[in-house]
Amino acid sequence: MGPKRCAVASEESLMRIFTVPEAPDSTLSKIELEISSNLAGFLNENIAAIEKPLHEIEKDFQDAVLPEEPMFVSDYAQDIMEQLVAHSVHTAAPSFIGHMTSALPHFVLPLSKLMVGLNQNLVKIETSKAFTPLERQVLGMMHHLAYGNDAHFYDKWMHSAKTSLGAFCSGGTIANITALWIARNRLLKADGEFKGIAAQGILAGMLHYGYKGLAVLVSDRGHYSLGKAADILGLGRENFIGIATDENNKVDVEKMRETAHQLQAKGIKVLALVGVAGTTETGNIDPLNDMADLSAELGCYFHVDAAWGGATLLSDNNRHLLAGIERADSITIDAHKQMYVPMGAGLVLFKDPAAADAIEHHAEYILRKGSKDLGSHTLEGSRPGMAMLVHACMRVIGRKGYEMLIDKGIDKARYFAELIKNDPDFELISEPELCLLTYRYVPKQIQRAIAQADEAERIEIYAALNRFTASMQKRQRETGRSFVSRTRLTPDQYDHQPTVVFRVVLANPLTSNAILKEILAEQKALAKTDPIFKKYLLKYLS
Amino acid sequence: MGPKRCAVASEESLMRIFTVPEAPDSTLSKIELEISSNLAGFLNENIAAIEKPLHEIEKDFQDAVLPEEPMFVSDYAQDIMEQLVAHSVHTAAPSFIGHMTSALPHFVLPLSKLMVGLNQNLVKIETSKAFTPLERQVLGMMHHLAYGNDAHFYDKWMHSAKTSLGAFCSGGTIANITALWIARNRLLKADGEFKGIAAQGILAGMLHYGYKGLAVLVSDRGHYSLGKAADILGLGRENFIGIATDENNKVDVEKMRETAHQLQAKGIKVLALVGVAGTTETGNIDPLNDMADLSAELGCYFHVDAAWGGATLLSDNNRHLLAGIERADSITIDAHKQMYVPMGAGLVLFKDPAAADAIEHHAEYILRKGSKDLGSHTLEGSRPGMAMLVHACMRVIGRKGYEMLIDKGIDKARYFAELIKNDPDFELISEPELCLLTYRYVPKQIQRAIAQADEAERIEIYAALNRFTASMQKRQRETGRSFVSRTRLTPDQYDHQPTVVFRVVLANPLTSNAILKEILAEQKALAKTDPIFKKYLLKYLS
Repeated sequence: MGPKRCAVASEESLMRIFTVPEAPDSTLSKIELEISSNLAGFLNENIAAIEKPLHEIEKDFQDAVLPEEPMFVSDYAQDIMEQLVAHSVHTAAPSFIGHMTSALPHFVLPLSKLMVGLNQNLVKIETSKAFTPLERQVLGMMHHLAYGNDAHFYDKWMHSAKTSLGAFCSGGTIANITALWIARNRLLKADGEFKGIAAQGILAGMLHYGYKGLAVLVSDRGHYSLGKAADILGLGRENFIGIATDENNKVDVEKMRETAHQLQAKGIKVLALVGVAGTTETGNIDPLNDMADLSAELGCYFHVDAAWGGATLLSDNNRHLLAGIERADSITIDAHKQMYVPMGAGLVLFKDPAAADAIEHHAEYILRKGSKDLGSHTLEGSRPGMAMLVHACMRVIGRKGYEMLIDKGIDKARYFAELIKNDPDFELISEPELCLLTYRYVPKQIQRAIAQADEAERIEIYAALNRFTASMQKRQRETGRSFVSRTRLTPDQYDHQPTVVFRVVLANPLTSNAILKEILAEQKALAKTDPIFKKYLLKYLS
Repeated sequence: MGPKRCAVASEESLMRIFTVPEAPDSTLSKIELEISSNLAGFLNENIAAIEKPLHEIEKDFQDAVLPEEPMFVSDYAQDIMEQLVAHSVHTAAPSFIGHMTSALPHFVLPLSKLMVGLNQNLVKIETSKAFTPLERQVLGMMHHLAYGNDAHFYDKWMHSAKTSLGAFCSGGTIANITALWIARNRLLKADGEFKGIAAQGILAGMLHYGYKGLAVLVSDRGHYSLGKAADILGLGRENFIGIATDENNKVDVEKMRETAHQLQAKGIKVLALVGVAGTTETGNIDPLNDMADLSAELGCYFHVDAAWGGATLLSDNNRHLLAGIERADSITIDAHKQMYVPMGAGLVLFKDPAAADAIEHHAEYILRKGSKDLGSHTLEGSRPGMAMLVHACMRVIGRKGYEMLIDKGIDKARYFAELIKNDPDFELISEPELCLLTYRYVPKQIQRAIAQADEAERIEIYAALNRFTASMQKRQRETGRSFVSRTRLTPDQYDHQPTVVFRVVLANPLTSNAILKEILAEQKALAKTDPIFKKYLLKYLS
């Protein structure tokens, strides 16, 4: 590797990489052709099935010194196929049902290339032009999908320089932070002598308004990005208060109300409630209408994190599951999850077109006041034109197409839940509300043993099941035929003890019922050879 | 448009978009082929030269209702060529010298497609595998470029699960926010009863440490993202204190020292100094060594925003301009600026591998403690594999290749500055230190008139020149042959009054000396027909 294949840097060879594309018979062009003609085949063939240990992979990425000499593109392409592509994750495989990523519609690939070639920067119109109205339209269409205002509303606000119906961003984390940033700044707004938190900071704001603390209430199942938001916004993770969920993993709104009243009695202002529409771990949706009522009662902001579940609004058959979402002050939706857009497309929608005023910013050379530059209302600055890919998916798939995809996912999850329930070796832990469910491998005999065990023994079996589940999940992943993920819940069935479970997300339209059956069969076979199972659990089967 | 070309959504047609690529003779495939064989030609032909007014473009992006029916990909591609691509900005054009975007090396296009097709999510190893060590290597190589530690250091830390040598992100804004987030959290760390700001929030932290306020000091020329950081981090924009610059647009460190002492006398703790290495408006570099001395004196954090200028480190001939950067606690560099990577690749480097501990976060299902998941140290969550494109550019271009590009840019800026100085119709406002300079169209006779004018008249001329410069910049952009940007400075020559100037960035390797001459010639011609010039300024020429 290296020196002998290196090209000498001359001005001429350097200019060539900015002007002359690779010859059609070069390694990179061949790779591209394969991707274009058959992406699934390319991924199947080039991603190694059996996992190489990470420390082995790292050997190819050891050098911390930037290479001095240039390298031929074809040589680089060859290296990257062997060192990177072969050991990446086949996120599009229909048997890889542990991720929120899925197969992609093929047309997004050439469109991505177009997007990269155009290399627009959405921070301002001067570097994005028509991409700005396009992004505003995408935000408008998503806003309409969630809030359903009338035509007059969108005519007035969608392209207005004064406001923004939402903010596009790289993903749900930035979207959630943006929403809570707005909530915080709206609460601690300018008032009399106080110029507002944006100008004077939290300390001055709290003193002015006489709050001893600010709290955000969210289900125990809230996404970890919310804790990150609490940290970065200066609120503190302890003031981000997790509320217990009911047996269906939905937040207990009565408990939330009690907690809110206790906090307020202590002089702590409830800044916001955050509802989750599709928790990452179990896929459940909080009672959004009840939460909207409570936020009205408390006079606080109401944000819904629908990063994953928000796409369900596209199905007229299932959008009722998110009833109440239209009462939220803001909503996070990730297009790169169930909207089948490639990684890097999140958005947050604002009920009130003036919401983003609270975080507005300007600069001399861009984002001038009165401009329609999108950058004056976003957390990020320079950003690529990802909105184009969302726009493309919306138009090519259409609402009805999305409806079919969403409905199929939910049906598939119900089917998989039935398979699990009908199999004496498996136990369903959480029922699918959307297309996500959790389960474990716990043969009926072990379930019986648990029921009959004394406390000490029960604790022992619980611990063994946890270790076994984690081990099996890892072994299945390493074998490379299929992938389920795992998480830790505290379900009713296990006395609310920490319980490691398999987690699957069935959004990939290419995942067939036959594949689901194979995954269970593979797990049964893996269990039989699992060292932890053999050592600690096998004895209960006799 | 619309209904008549729509495909009926059937499950079969829907599945097809996830499996079968477009036929090679479809519109989208033809577009892709054109991009592959000749990107520059494609952009030249398909982006309309003459600007269509924004309100006209918006007409194609009016509908806020998501279309119900699917649409054929080819039809969509046709629409997008007419409605979007034609009215996007030709950021790669060698005569468009107003942006920080440039022409891209051609190999990043097929690699981008590969990246999108792989659709990895860098938040965790489970969805990114080899992309994680690759990204860590990119951070390591950039860290080495800036800090130059020894091999032992990188062997120990580059792939360590415990730490991170930096954080990859979508751009410089997130990078700057991440750096100051760390600075804030390190200052208000856990201490005795106090569990630290991340847990308890700013208010508790300030009370515990007895600070009346926290301040960040930065040059008046600091990027607007720093104000955004002050807002989101709860510090307040007023506590983000701009310090005047000298006649070379470099921060006056003596003034910074005075201000710091005044603040500390009032009980306000200086949290951080931010040095700028390549200001957005004039391209100058703050005296980083002096700032490092001051931060040592004050015992505060030192961050350098080298989003644009950081790439200069790649040139052994010019990296001395950034001397002292290696003393910064953290450094922001955007790969999508002078490293010729497509939009969406920023990074922040940490001198101390343990720096990011201050913002570390974990979750049950991912980012488990002890894992090498990159997401435990990043502001963003799910993120695409952009690091691959940086890796590719570093290896294919090589340090020497970059050196040539950086040096050529600086030489070109010096050449353009000479052209301007030698032309009696133009006035250089800021000398290029890197490849960025500012200037105006002010014929010698007008310069003379200013020198002889009384105060009232001078103010009048100044105002006319500002209006004229803005008008001409807009007219040049609309004509579509070339593009320079504009900003507002307060230069010496104009008694520190707000002064609208042309701003150019000469990073595009395809921008020739001949093009630079043409741009000045075009501006001369435009001035002659400018209505504002004719009305208010022409009279001084006689």
